[in-house]
Amino acid sequence: MSLTLVIGSKNTSSWSLRGWLAMCLSGAEFEEILIPLGGADTARRIREHSPSGKVPLLKCEDGPIWDSLAIAEYLAEQFPEAYMWPRGEAARALARSVCAEMHSGFAALRANMPMDLQRQQPLARVPAEVEADIARIVELWTLCRQRFGQDGPFLFGHASIADAFYAPVATRFRSYAVELPPLAKAYVDTIYQWHLFQPWLQAARAEKA
Amino acid sequence: MSLTLVIGSKNTSSWSLRGWLAMCLSGAEFEEILIPLGGADTARRIREHSPSGKVPLLKCEDGPIWDSLAIAEYLAEQFPEAYMWPRGEAARALARSVCAEMHSGFAALRANMPMDLQRQQPLARVPAEVEADIARIVELWTLCRQRFGQDGPFLFGHASIADAFYAPVATRFRSYAVELPPLAKAYVDTIYQWHLFQPWLQAARAEKA
Repeated sequence: MSLTLVIGSKNTSSWSLRGWLAMCLSGAEFEEILIPLGGADTARRIREHSPSGKVPLLKCEDGPIWDSLAIAEYLAEQFPEAYMWPRGEAARALARSVCAEMHSGFAALRANMPMDLQRQQPLARVPAEVEADIARIVELWTLCRQRFGQDGPFLFGHASIADAFYAPVATRFRSYAVELPPLAKAYVDTIYQWHLFQPWLQAARAEKA
Repeated sequence: MSLTLVIGSKNTSSWSLRGWLAMCLSGAEFEEILIPLGGADTARRIREHSPSGKVPLLKCEDGPIWDSLAIAEYLAEQFPEAYMWPRGEAARALARSVCAEMHSGFAALRANMPMDLQRQQPLARVPAEVEADIARIVELWTLCRQRFGQDGPFLFGHASIADAFYAPVATRFRSYAVELPPLAKAYVDTIYQWHLFQPWLQAARAEKA
């Protein structure tokens, strides 16, 4: 099967990172088309590939698939032996709940602390609604780690789509120097040490602003 | 398996409707707990059931599952014989893409035209970003119907999770008297004639404002 993932700039496109990590978790080989965001012809170049005008987009024999969550579910179905979702039903149900909450939520965090892998600077002032988002995320990470994290350092032990979805949040916490309780801090370290994330991080840091 | 779905008011809770229709599509029996929205103790009553503080929430042996999309994916896995997603891989990939786009998008439509099944009145003025959302939704419906709608009147022929996700949008188009091209208008009629939707609609119309 030929798989091509269309993504945006690695430094700032958090949804691209989610789709890209899901792609890596599948174990399948894939091509990558990177369209730098914020350029004069960015919208036109994305529309050449993506009917929704958004990235990430997966091009494959089953047509264009857009949105990181649809891509992740498609790949999980196509590559069942990769166990991209946790194996147990209860773990999988929780993983899908936390991914869906990320997918439609945390608007304050996303607006005020956009992903910027090159950044190393706290916000001058953290709005209360961002604090609430951070507290909720720490609560979710704690729940996942305590209930299903026995077999490894990821949210559900082994790396899964849930980590693909929360990796961009972990990077925000480091980029914006957010103070965290020990469990959450350890999880941020886990993401930065993740062998699948490291090549993305290096490429992101090499991008010109 | 014991299944209980916690939902909000039927007249206005569009995400509850999505979860509830998905539940119906599974063919499984379920109990329903309805918490009227907008009351003084609404937040407290939801939190008794729902760790995210949101509805819908599915209570089952695999723990609380929140968010309509996570509920739908869970049920689709648990009840494979119900074919809650379309059968073909390409159809399923498109169905997941359009559901994910609904799940994270159309903010202008949702803010300006909240679901209100009792309403029969156009907006005084339709903002341009709402017009853009409507145009995109019509584009998506047309794509689904033309590519995969041969075997029935729903987005993918037979009723699927995609219809559960777009049913609340179809009701907005009728409640706010949005002018639509014939294909989209016919699809709105399909939703209103859907035997799974009708009991919800009747209950919604009987609710006190």
